[in-house]
Formats: sequence, C-alpha cells, structure tokens
Amino acid sequence: MSTSGMEQHPAHSLAFVEDCEHGLRVPVTEIALDDSPSGEANAPLRVYRTSGPGSDPVVGLPAYRADWVAGRGDVEAYTGRERNLLDDGRSAVRRGEASAEWKGAKPVPLRAKPGRRVTQMHYARAGVVTEEMRFVALRENCDVELVRSEVAAGRAIIPSNINHPESEPMIIGKAFLVKINANIGNSAVTSSIAEEVDKLQWATKWGADTVMDLSTGDDIHTTREWIIRNSPVPIGTVPIYQALEKVNGDASALTWEVFRDTVIEQCEQGVDYMTIHAGVLLRYVPLTAERVTGIVSRGGSIMAGWCLAHHEENFLYTHFDELCEIFAQYDVAFSLGDGLRPGSTADANDAAQFAELDTLAELTKRAWECDVQVMVEGPGHIPFHLVRENVERQQELCDGAPFYTLGPLVTDVAPGYDHITSAIGATEIARYGTAMLCYVTPKEHLGLPNKDDVKTGVITYKIAAHAADLAKGHPGAHERDDALSKARFEFRWRDQFSLSLDPATAEAFHDETLPAEPAKTAHFCSMCGPKFCSMRISQDIRNEFGSRQAQEAIAGMREKSEEFRASGGKVYLPETITVGAPE
Amino acid sequence: MSTSGMEQHPAHSLAFVEDCEHGLRVPVTEIALDDSPSGEANAPLRVYRTSGPGSDPVVGLPAYRADWVAGRGDVEAYTGRERNLLDDGRSAVRRGEASAEWKGAKPVPLRAKPGRRVTQMHYARAGVVTEEMRFVALRENCDVELVRSEVAAGRAIIPSNINHPESEPMIIGKAFLVKINANIGNSAVTSSIAEEVDKLQWATKWGADTVMDLSTGDDIHTTREWIIRNSPVPIGTVPIYQALEKVNGDASALTWEVFRDTVIEQCEQGVDYMTIHAGVLLRYVPLTAERVTGIVSRGGSIMAGWCLAHHEENFLYTHFDELCEIFAQYDVAFSLGDGLRPGSTADANDAAQFAELDTLAELTKRAWECDVQVMVEGPGHIPFHLVRENVERQQELCDGAPFYTLGPLVTDVAPGYDHITSAIGATEIARYGTAMLCYVTPKEHLGLPNKDDVKTGVITYKIAAHAADLAKGHPGAHERDDALSKARFEFRWRDQFSLSLDPATAEAFHDETLPAEPAKTAHFCSMCGPKFCSMRISQDIRNEFGSRQAQEAIAGMREKSEEFRASGGKVYLPETITVGAPE
Repeated sequence: MSTSGMEQHPAHSLAFVEDCEHGLRVPVTEIALDDSPSGEANAPLRVYRTSGPGSDPVVGLPAYRADWVAGRGDVEAYTGRERNLLDDGRSAVRRGEASAEWKGAKPVPLRAKPGRRVTQMHYARAGVVTEEMRFVALRENCDVELVRSEVAAGRAIIPSNINHPESEPMIIGKAFLVKINANIGNSAVTSSIAEEVDKLQWATKWGADTVMDLSTGDDIHTTREWIIRNSPVPIGTVPIYQALEKVNGDASALTWEVFRDTVIEQCEQGVDYMTIHAGVLLRYVPLTAERVTGIVSRGGSIMAGWCLAHHEENFLYTHFDELCEIFAQYDVAFSLGDGLRPGSTADANDAAQFAELDTLAELTKRAWECDVQVMVEGPGHIPFHLVRENVERQQELCDGAPFYTLGPLVTDVAPGYDHITSAIGATEIARYGTAMLCYVTPKEHLGLPNKDDVKTGVITYKIAAHAADLAKGHPGAHERDDALSKARFEFRWRDQFSLSLDPATAEAFHDETLPAEPAKTAHFCSMCGPKFCSMRISQDIRNEFGSRQAQEAIAGMREKSEEFRASGGKVYLPETITVGAPE
Repeated sequence: MSTSGMEQHPAHSLAFVEDCEHGLRVPVTEIALDDSPSGEANAPLRVYRTSGPGSDPVVGLPAYRADWVAGRGDVEAYTGRERNLLDDGRSAVRRGEASAEWKGAKPVPLRAKPGRRVTQMHYARAGVVTEEMRFVALRENCDVELVRSEVAAGRAIIPSNINHPESEPMIIGKAFLVKINANIGNSAVTSSIAEEVDKLQWATKWGADTVMDLSTGDDIHTTREWIIRNSPVPIGTVPIYQALEKVNGDASALTWEVFRDTVIEQCEQGVDYMTIHAGVLLRYVPLTAERVTGIVSRGGSIMAGWCLAHHEENFLYTHFDELCEIFAQYDVAFSLGDGLRPGSTADANDAAQFAELDTLAELTKRAWECDVQVMVEGPGHIPFHLVRENVERQQELCDGAPFYTLGPLVTDVAPGYDHITSAIGATEIARYGTAMLCYVTPKEHLGLPNKDDVKTGVITYKIAAHAADLAKGHPGAHERDDALSKARFEFRWRDQFSLSLDPATAEAFHDETLPAEPAKTAHFCSMCGPKFCSMRISQDIRNEFGSRQAQEAIAGMREKSEEFRASGGKVYLPETITVGAPE
C-alpha cells in the first residue's frame, strides 16, 4: 500500500475540540502560524478535519461509535445473511470461491431489535440527543439543539449505519458547512482493492466528507468491506450496480428479490447511504426519448430499460416502503437518485427531470414516515442561469430535505476540465442551499480518475463548498481566508502555504521561479519582482505615512494647500520621499 | 523560437466568413465532424478564432488594417518621438545602447491630422460605419448597426490603435460575446523577448481575445515592439510600469512629463488600450489604511505613494483631459484602472473601492467628451454573494461602459488553484454584464506563469466566458455544446475531442485508460466500462423501444394492464428483453 504523499504538512497537527462533560473529542487540524513582523503572535487556526486517525488497511480503524450504538440498547447482533459466491461477481464464480473474509472471520452484523427504529432521525424526533449529534455540534461549532432539530425536521442527515462504527459523525444539511463527496470504485476495466483503499485515504486526506464506492468490477463485496473498515467518513453506494453484476449484466433479469438481498448485504457491511433510483417511473421514460443525450445516469438507464422491457412500474418504487423498513433497522440513509438528470445543457430543467423530482419529493415523505433519513440527488449539466431554480424547486418540493448534486456542469465544451465547469455550477447551487456536492474530476466523461485526479477533484470541490459557505455568511467560514490574506500582506510565505488547501502545490509553484530559502521571507515574489510588489509598496506607505488618521491629515494638508493657493499664497513645496524598494 | 504545440488539430482548419460586398473576410476555425451512426451528416462547426494568420516572429504580421486607416484620410505620418536609452530600462543605460530597432529602422508612426479624432467612437457617433465595425459584425454574426450603435453609446469598444494595423478587429461590450484577456510580460526576475512572443502566440492559439504586456524588466520597449508586430489581437499595457523604470524605480520621482512621454512612446508603437490609474485620489488613500491587504494594484500603490509623498493630487487625474487628447489622436482606449480594488475577500466592496469607482465613472464621461473609447477595470477578490453588485453598480454609474474584471476570486484559501477560484467569480460577473475577463493562472500570488500556466489560464477563462454567454442566452452560443453533446451520445469520440476547448488533453485523458485505437469507436469509456455505460443503455432503449410515441404506447399498455388487473383479469406477462451489453 502506497503511503506516498500521506504525510502531514509540517505546520499541521492533529488537535481535538473537547466536550469533557460528555467525554467527546472531535479531531481537527491545527495550523501553526508565525508571528507577524510587528511581533504580534498569530493564534493557530483550527480547521475541519476529515482524514480520521489513519489506519493500516489490513487492520482497519477502531470502532469509534460501537459503545454509543450499544449504549442505546435497541440493537441486536445476529448471524447475518449467508455469503454467496455471486457477492464478488462472476470472476469469483469462475474461480469457484469468494475472496477471503475480512480478517478471516464472518462479521457479526447488528440490526434494530424487533419493532425498533435506530435512525438518528428517530432519536431526534423523540427529543433524544445522541452522541453522534453532540459530536457533530462540536465539529460544526454550533448548538446541539440546531443539530437535533434539523435532523428531526429532515433538513439534515447524519449518515451513520450502526454497522459502520469506524465513522466519525458528520452532518449534511443547508444550515451546516457545505460538504463534498468523492467517488471511488473499480470498474470492469481497471483497478484493485488496494488501490481503492488508497484512493479512500487520499480523498479524505484532502477533505472528502463522504466517499461513494461505485465499484462495478470484480470482488465488489470484498472491495467494499476493505473500504468501510478503513473509512472515517460515511460510505455511500449504488446497490443496483452490484445487483446487476449478480444477474450477469442483464438488466431485464433484475428482480426485487435480488435487489433486496443486495441491499441487506450492504446494510450488514455498514454502507451509510445508498442511491436508489426509485423515481424513474415507467411513464417518465418517454419524456427522455427526444433528449440530446437521453438518460445519462447508469442506475436511471438500467431501471428505464427494465420498466420498458417488463411493461412494469419500477420495482424500486413499488417496493419503496419495504426498503424504508430495512433502512430503518440499520440507519441507512436514502440518497434518492436522479436517474433522469440531464446529461447536457440542452436537456436541463426539462419535463423528464422535473417529473422525477416530483416523485422524489413524494418518496422523501414516505421515508420520513419511517424515520429514515433522506437526501435527494440533483444534476448534472445545467447552464448557469438555470442552476438556482434546481435547488429552490427541490427545497420547496422536498420540504428542505438535503440536496446532493453532481456539479452541475455549466457547459459541455470542456472535457478534460469538467472539474472546473462543474465547480462553477456547484458554487452557485450550494450558495442557494445545496448541502453536499459530489465532486467531478478532470477525467469526467473520458476515463477513470487516478490519484492525481482524485486530489484535483477534491480540492476543486473544497473551493466550491468553501466559496458557498462564505457566500452564505456561514459563521467562522471567513477565518481561514482572513488569516491567509493577513499572512499574504505580511509576506509570511510559509503561513500562506500552510493555510492553503494544498500547501505543497502552493510552495512548489512559488519555488519554481524563486527556489532559494531566503525567498520564503522575501517581501515580494517573482510575479512582480521587488520593485513592483504592490503589497510591499502598500506596506511602505503604512510605514511611512502611518495610520488612517495620519494619512487623512496629509490629504487635509492638500486641501489647505489648495485654499492657500486659491488665496494667492505661495505653492506648498512637498518633500520628496522615496516610496518603494530602493535598489 | 519554439513552435512546439502550435500545430493545428487535424480536424480544425482555417476558414473564412466573407462579406463580398465590402471585400472583407473574417477567419474562423472550422471543425470537421463525422457522420452520425445513422448515416446523418453533421455539418462542420465554425467557431470564433483569435490566433490570426500566424507569423514568423522576426517578420511580423501583415498590416491588415493599414489601407482602412489610410483610406479614411484623417491621419498623417510623422517623425515620431526620439528614442531614448531609458526606453529600454536601466540595463540599456548601463550597456550604453538601446536594443536594435525593429527590422533595423526607426518606425514611422501615424497620428490624427490636426484637429481630427480618429477613434472608432468618433466615427460611430458620426454615423460612419468603418471596416473595423463591419469586420466585427461578421465576426460576431450580428447586425453592423448593433456594433455601430453600441460603440457610439460607449457600451462597447473596438480597441484599434492606428499604429497596430496587424490586429484583427474585435469588440468588447456586453451585447457581444464575452472576451478574455491574457497577461504576459517579463519581470526583473525572469524571461526574454523570445519567450514573450511565444507566450503571445500561445495565448491567442488557445483563445485570448486581447493580451496585456505587463513587462517590468529589461528591454521593455523592444519587447513590446516584438509583441505588437506579431499580435493579431489588441495589446494592452500599464504605462506607469515603464515610467517607473525610467525614474529608477523611485515612485516619488514620477512626473506627468515622464508619464506623458511614455504614453506617446507607446501610442506610436501601437498599444491598443492602456490601464490608467487616474481614480486613485489622494483623499481615497486613507480609506485603505485599515484594510487586511491594503492596496494590491501595482499601479494603484505607486500612485497612492506618489500622492502621499507629494501631498498632491494624482497627476493622472489632474492631467486626464490631456491624456484624452493624446488617445484621440491614435485611437487608444482607456482601461480605467481600479487601483484600489480589494486584494482579499475581507476588503471587498468597501469604501475605498467604491469611492474610486465613482471617480472612474466621472472619468468615463470626460473621455467620451473627446470621443475616446473607455472600459473600466474591476476586482479582484470578492465573495460570491457580493460579485453581482460590482457589475451592476459599475454599469449604472458608468452608463454601460464595458466592465473588465480580474476574476474575481471568490475565496483566498487556494493559492495554486486561483484560476479556478477566480473562474467561479468570473462566470458570475460576466453573466450580469461584464464584457471582458482578465485571466488568472494557477501561479497567481505565487510566481510567473509558464506556458502551461498560460494555457490553463486561457482555457479556464474560455470556460467562464462561454458559460456566461450560455447563461445570457447569447445567440448561437449553445451550438458547440449541442454538437459536442450529440457526439457524446453517439459515441463519436473523435468529434468529442475536436469539439472540446482542448482536444489534445481530452484525447490524452481518454487514452490513459483505453489507449487502443478501437476504443475511439467503442460505445463506452473506462469510467463505466461497457456494461454500465448509461449512454449505451439509453441508446439501446431507443433502438429497442423506438420513438417517444412507441415508448408512450408501452407505458400506456402498463396502465391498461393495471386496469385489466383491477377488473379481475389475468396478469399481463411481459416478454423478457435484454437491455444493455450482453457479454
């Protein structure tokens, strides 16, 4: 397993925000800062940390939440579903054996005791403040009652499958920091288990708040097991992918029974949220027939094909209440898939897309009846002026259920740069209330992302999410910007690097033209050179002419001088003072 | 001179849009497209082309507009200003000789005959339709009267110094396609003349509509000469940089006389627009004293320092009318510099920034009195929710004069990625009427951009500008998106690459995981693999189930079947049809 690049930046350290009363501590990254040139000390800045305590992939993470779950007294261990060769796909069938169990033993899953619901929404509605909620409140630096009430109202979710005790609770909702998701997963074409665990750790190092395992290739069960056991963040999946593998890739052979079995398999493993394309109704499919790009959601196209082939309604829709009952036993959250999302700006905000959204709103409320947490997925490809309507419509129809969007991309003409085209749309949609943004990498539409692409995608989406937090006036969001700007004005180069989202890249770019160590303390950079550095000149002005009051006095003298001249007096002769860097 | 990467993409060719009546032809890039799988032919797509005919740097471009300028009969050739050793900076002084003249001979500049104004605004106001306006109308695919009237009203400019006849006319105004500017230029730290010409050609290859030469280093006059003689796009400068070089970097030693001489030097060379920081008034400087990042415009900080040192009003302001008279003789456009723009999101939309904007509005109208074309520069660093106010305020105060902004960056925390942070703000500000966007490269705040950075900056800004065109509903803007989306749905991979803003990168990313030639025609990519390709499944659905009407019939059958069941009849047994890729 590669650990290259996983080292922490020297100025970054792991610290904790503590709630001693409840024995809780939330990991944060503390960024040490140098003193200002004036001698003023700069307090270290603490920032949200997603990377967890770190783990050796073969050992996994400690079961952080196990005691909390057990302490509520409403779950039971049980034997769990029998492993099936097909769980790991046809390659496992071909070789005649499944991959080895995690640590060699069949896991013992938990589920709700009969008649109980173990979802955070259930507790929140009952007025119970869970450890998960307290953890989230510490992490978001807000009142725990805000957390409880938003979860109770369905406006926020804390994805937290009781079988994923390794995860550090986080919240997705528009009252909180905007979150980002990174997709990983193998495909039939490429990738190994070790690579996927590596991508998981890499994505959370750079700031992914959740990770979706979208594997569609070999050893799909085992890959997921390794990912979950090593993940400090919630894991999402799209179970229809695995179900399709189990029926040999023949969409029309899919059945509710195969799907249900797959869902239970994944609930027992600890998947925290699942994308369910239950809104792709048979009668909506013809609405896509004249689109430029048809149906571009994999799950959407699979279910549309199934509906037409069987002349039947989508089985995910007809069995939705049963799904809710299952999810309530494990606290799996719905991520209601937008199977009919537009795949081109030409198809944006069309009848098919909005018809499905109406159904997703209906399903949101049905899930809430079972106390199941829900978020709703959104597009896709949307021209910039039509982006806002998407989130406002979703928020209204779905009574504020968190919106979770893929971008959207605001133009189709830049394959290779779709992390950028989509970050533009993502900032706009998050500003108006989208709670989580699914990242898009430079490889979108072209191929599978490698590690560099994952990093670029995550950082680009941290930018979009943070820009939206600033735009929403989220409390404290501006602190990092202000600290970095102050460091910039004071030529504290090392602090500029360590406060940035990607310190190593910032430093490398700086060093490309001015590599020597003294340049790290120089009062200029290679962009302008010493003489043309505006910040240097601006600082010199402050040093020469002092405070605002002193400067106003000079400006006032000018007026006096004009009055003097106007009255026929002699012209005031200014002293010549050198401003800027003498050579 | 390196020509690597300057080759045209094989599917791209130079074509012309012609106006036979007036003997004009506008170069465009024609993108050849394959037939659809159905056999339908796809017409080649013509897109805006900024790269000009191409030139050998030592030869320069042909004087495209020379006859048009001469034909108006209002200009005269004259001896021109005497070259001065200082024109090429102190290194030339030290070595005791200026660099060689362009092609060994002192150029003979043109200027307006006494009493004449030779600006496009002057002609437009007089009801004269110039060849430049006709060229622009062909290029923008709009009515020439729109061009003339917008220029007459000051809402658009056609930067076209009569001494830069090599340039292909282009227009900057909110009724037209959003434009982008790329900055190049050497600094005291790095770069040579050859490198700058190379960057110019590189930037226009990727789509820069104008280029600013921000050189502050050695051989500043000669570098500019080479750039202009090879530039098919308007060239902008900030003459205060060169003026400061002439006074040995001592801002307080600047005088109106040195500045005026520098401006004339640059007018004679053919600079098309100049940034003039005439809005930095003495009384505004104290408003920046308590900012987080002070004054971050180089020109702004130089003039602020000068004002305070001299206890005098900014000489650019006090001599503004004289500048207008000079500009009117060459058709140089003002780019009124925002010397007090915010350098951090904390300083956005503050009193200093908006006070200066009030003055820029006053100066806009004074320039218009002399028929001088004007655009107004804007920020900088602005949080996303405050971006719109900037352009709306500028448009209102400046009576619609074109706005030209640097980004703005919507967060300060991502040095190394500021092309992205600023493209987000740029899209928003362009959507609401900004006419030109000054690019930001990944090296912003850190160092000087290399060729890769220039390309990344230009393409990122093409994305922002194009996304804004789409959002504004600009006629025809969606054609490239729709053509690419159609190619995508039809698995015409080669067309997807050639229609993209950066074909080589799109193709390289595709080939990283599926390099073999057959993959170029495969009905999937490595992202999803063959079985999970939604577009493939979506196409299969169309192939299997036909048109919208046919699909509606199936959906209708379902309803009939439900009625049938409801009436106690037997259940309809569907045929099983395989959807998706059989193995």
